[in-house]
Amino acid sequence: MNTPLIDGIKNIENFRRIPQQNLDELAREIREFLVEKVSRTGGHIASNLGVVELTIALHKVFDTPRDKIVFDVGHQTYVSKILSGRADEFDTLRKKDGLSGFPKRSESEFDVFNTGHSSTSVSAALGLLRAMRHKGDKSSVAAVIGDGALTGGMAFEALNDAGESGLPLIVILNDNEMSISRNVGALTRHLGEMRSSSGYRSFKKNLSVFLSKIPKLGPRIRVRLSRLKSRIKYFLLPNVLFEELGFTYLGPVDGHDINKLIETITMARNMEEPVLLHVITRKGRGYKPAETEPGKFHGIGPFAPETGEEIKKNITSNSAIAGQAVCRIAERDRDVAVVTAAMSTGTGMEEFKKRYSDRFFDVGIAEQHAVTMAAGLACGGMKPIAAIYSSFMQRAYDQMLHDVALQRLPVVFALDRAGLVGADGETHQGVYDIAYVLTMPYVDIYSPASAGELEQMLEMAVNKGNPAVVRYGRGLLPDAEYPHIEYGKWLEINPISDVTVIASGRMVETAKRAAEATGAGLVSARFIRPMDEDMLRRIGEKTRIIITIEDGIASGGMGSRIAEWFSGSVKVIRLGVGEEPVKQASVEEQDILCGMDCESLKKVISMAMEEI
Amino acid sequence: MNTPLIDGIKNIENFRRIPQQNLDELAREIREFLVEKVSRTGGHIASNLGVVELTIALHKVFDTPRDKIVFDVGHQTYVSKILSGRADEFDTLRKKDGLSGFPKRSESEFDVFNTGHSSTSVSAALGLLRAMRHKGDKSSVAAVIGDGALTGGMAFEALNDAGESGLPLIVILNDNEMSISRNVGALTRHLGEMRSSSGYRSFKKNLSVFLSKIPKLGPRIRVRLSRLKSRIKYFLLPNVLFEELGFTYLGPVDGHDINKLIETITMARNMEEPVLLHVITRKGRGYKPAETEPGKFHGIGPFAPETGEEIKKNITSNSAIAGQAVCRIAERDRDVAVVTAAMSTGTGMEEFKKRYSDRFFDVGIAEQHAVTMAAGLACGGMKPIAAIYSSFMQRAYDQMLHDVALQRLPVVFALDRAGLVGADGETHQGVYDIAYVLTMPYVDIYSPASAGELEQMLEMAVNKGNPAVVRYGRGLLPDAEYPHIEYGKWLEINPISDVTVIASGRMVETAKRAAEATGAGLVSARFIRPMDEDMLRRIGEKTRIIITIEDGIASGGMGSRIAEWFSGSVKVIRLGVGEEPVKQASVEEQDILCGMDCESLKKVISMAMEEI
Repeated sequence: MNTPLIDGIKNIENFRRIPQQNLDELAREIREFLVEKVSRTGGHIASNLGVVELTIALHKVFDTPRDKIVFDVGHQTYVSKILSGRADEFDTLRKKDGLSGFPKRSESEFDVFNTGHSSTSVSAALGLLRAMRHKGDKSSVAAVIGDGALTGGMAFEALNDAGESGLPLIVILNDNEMSISRNVGALTRHLGEMRSSSGYRSFKKNLSVFLSKIPKLGPRIRVRLSRLKSRIKYFLLPNVLFEELGFTYLGPVDGHDINKLIETITMARNMEEPVLLHVITRKGRGYKPAETEPGKFHGIGPFAPETGEEIKKNITSNSAIAGQAVCRIAERDRDVAVVTAAMSTGTGMEEFKKRYSDRFFDVGIAEQHAVTMAAGLACGGMKPIAAIYSSFMQRAYDQMLHDVALQRLPVVFALDRAGLVGADGETHQGVYDIAYVLTMPYVDIYSPASAGELEQMLEMAVNKGNPAVVRYGRGLLPDAEYPHIEYGKWLEINPISDVTVIASGRMVETAKRAAEATGAGLVSARFIRPMDEDMLRRIGEKTRIIITIEDGIASGGMGSRIAEWFSGSVKVIRLGVGEEPVKQASVEEQDILCGMDCESLKKVISMAMEEI
Repeated sequence: MNTPLIDGIKNIENFRRIPQQNLDELAREIREFLVEKVSRTGGHIASNLGVVELTIALHKVFDTPRDKIVFDVGHQTYVSKILSGRADEFDTLRKKDGLSGFPKRSESEFDVFNTGHSSTSVSAALGLLRAMRHKGDKSSVAAVIGDGALTGGMAFEALNDAGESGLPLIVILNDNEMSISRNVGALTRHLGEMRSSSGYRSFKKNLSVFLSKIPKLGPRIRVRLSRLKSRIKYFLLPNVLFEELGFTYLGPVDGHDINKLIETITMARNMEEPVLLHVITRKGRGYKPAETEPGKFHGIGPFAPETGEEIKKNITSNSAIAGQAVCRIAERDRDVAVVTAAMSTGTGMEEFKKRYSDRFFDVGIAEQHAVTMAAGLACGGMKPIAAIYSSFMQRAYDQMLHDVALQRLPVVFALDRAGLVGADGETHQGVYDIAYVLTMPYVDIYSPASAGELEQMLEMAVNKGNPAVVRYGRGLLPDAEYPHIEYGKWLEINPISDVTVIASGRMVETAKRAAEATGAGLVSARFIRPMDEDMLRRIGEKTRIIITIEDGIASGGMGSRIAEWFSGSVKVIRLGVGEEPVKQASVEEQDILCGMDCESLKKVISMAMEEI
């Protein structure tokens, strides 16, 4: 790999000294660099390839880190990391103690706000801008947000506030015509029309050029001209959502034309008002395999850079198993529906989408609406399955509590990516769900320990008619054969003993090996709610120390409920994720960090055996 | 009170038989009835007076309960309850075992979806409509949503999905130019412009009349006409937000003109597409005191019907104390800011708003944005206090976790209405916050037991610079004098003993009386996090049974953490709110229902004393 321009960038000043005519060459180098590096580490490649020119132009015009750029979602900041002098660290991308795949304030002053979940950037940027102005700091602030993230309601809340504030917030709409899955909703159609309005575009262009040539315009004349501009626009182009919200709309701009981007961003930066700059980019740009299959290259493991072939480990996954199970359930029961929030691929629901399109609802990145709409479906007699990642489900905590749980509506949540998730790190850890779902009344929690249990439990949850969560992690549960599941009943795997381990979900496999080696009792808590109180009583009769192990926070989860139950009698040692958020690493490494691996459990068992 | 028309309404059929020319008289009766009844029970009066004609027209045109009306927020359903035959029950409004102040599916088939929190109606109605169509049911579905609720992002998420679906969902925008406090944001300005566009209105009116006269129009011609209409509209009126989202916009309509409403709702019902019907109403309409002060009459206690004077119990409240404290803090520290979500009055922040308008941000009903914007302020060096009701804060669970807690940003949450809230019932109970905040890393929880502690704790939380929650209930904490607060330290009120009560917040007062009567030890857990581990160790040395009491759910909260800590040693009995949601009643009655009153605590203490 020959990347002399990148090699020279040890800090942002090095980058800023590159002459503008060489920036296209820099973009080419960055693409080569990204494909090369990410093909080895894995990561979010398509979105980063899409924003190479945009990020270059932003750092060229903006005086970063004094000026601030908040990247929504944050997985598209690789280019920003290169330009701010972090190219050397890319071999450690998304690895333990390595470069984060997201902006992290602890990593660099160029990462101004930690993101990970969608649609937060406009709120964060507006808060930052308000604080800066309060402190007399006149620097610029931009939020870079994708068209997918824009469907998230909080982005709308923020635009509404920012538009009214009159503050010079620059919102850059990175419009690549898709979020993670194909985008949905009226807004998408709206943007599509906007993109295709070439007549308006050229008119607008001329007008913008005209306006940009008289930057010292008095505010009164500017307002008048701006009104005129609006009038004409409304007649030419019925796509005025953003101006309605108080933003001056600029664009659309070709997001791969650096010079044009620099020109327009400069214009936006000189305007003393909220500006929405509409930039059209292409996901995966410049790397054929990613351009062709941007979904596959959204987040990907290591791949062969020449062909784009993934160097696979997993043939299948929990998501795929859940997707197949849901199809089978839907085949027998025509009231079963699937709701997802821009995650039909990630949650394995593509087949369902194809086969039962009339019962499949992808609402875009809009978890709140997804959950309450599912509650509406259930209220109308359907049996909705909401397939959502555990950490994204946090967005709809209130909807799950207020609209599903309090009304006791039979919505089944297929919570994918529950537990430790590995390389995505803190923001994506699905370790809170057990604890937060346990705060809600009536919601059952199913915790399958094998692929077969996952299938059975999805079906059981749908048939049971309670609000319910079926939680399963990234990766693949073992193929173990367990006896048939009985609702609310746990499974005694090794006879209950002086020291008994109560394990749940993925941790059952870990616990089996540890119990085998130590002779401890072992119970699989197939249901975190309802708890199997008969089994608890039996354990209470024989056991002197209970060790619980779960793939979630150790306080507030299953172990806590068991400790409450045994208060004043049997001692409960709780293994799980501690309070400290778990940083990026492999899941195996994270298990060790949290003391949830087999060796740690064996040690805890041995100590308990000595203690009694 | 002479209300012959209301007296004749024992069911919806009685209402439907009232001739249209008598409906204005019915509206007059309903207003008299509402003022009379609510002046005695207290309740949400202003919003109900505003929707009298709208609700009459809806039930006249809609074949309820076959057709469905989902009321957003739900406190404006009193008229619907009268029309569906529940007038007789209004003496029990919002009382224990009485008529709910919100729609409750358990109460009537006319209450189709339980609401309480804002902005859920479009999602729920869309889900219902999808399920009904799936089952071959061709009935109509409407969502009635206020202009305030429309600023909530999930309403936008739902409009985006509904607009694209093409389904004949009728969204009725009840535009009274204010939500609970004065409305804010670009959307408000937008609606204002819409209301004032009389030229457009009359044009639109003529066009609508014209269109309504040819209802059997072929779809193709309809589409063409509709496009023409749009073109003209864009030129005449730059307010097209809803049409951009895929809705056909009808209105604005005078919300107090029954005939016009019936005509327009009929038109909307006959259109086979998403329709947004813009209705202009006046909060408090027809009752002078409520028209003059709609904020005061939003939710009100008993009042004198002639004058509107409230029959007050409380001179002051926790909210007022918090508001004063925040002003004092802001006086000394110019970096302190206040963020609220349409609750500046409810949270006592009106004075701050007046005195420090440049540091006061009311973002409308938009808790998600409020919290992340506050995180942005903190990231930029300010010291934001987010004043939000406990149960509404559930909306921003993810923002608190993902944007504040994980980044350890110093946002202080002044959580008002924490704990049991009385007459609002299940949806508004602020009993989940301790448990859900404890799932998040780093966030301190302050739990003041007196008015003085509330003041001190707000100041301490701001100065400490941690993310923090200060929680306090509706009503007024006692005036008790306690020693100065030390960060993280609990207070031994009665000497630690064989049986020791650990109480928190409002429950300290209850526990003082119970401990006094029984001789139990008593500790005030001023901090729920961090816990005072020195004190816990001291308790562990002397105490054989601990009884915890907190104004929140008993599983997952303070008592659970203490039970975890003492696992295998001291027995912990946890008092607090059980899993079953707590229905409307007075707070005193709810305390008794939950076994959290002084008598219940005394009994538990006595039993514990016997046990040891």
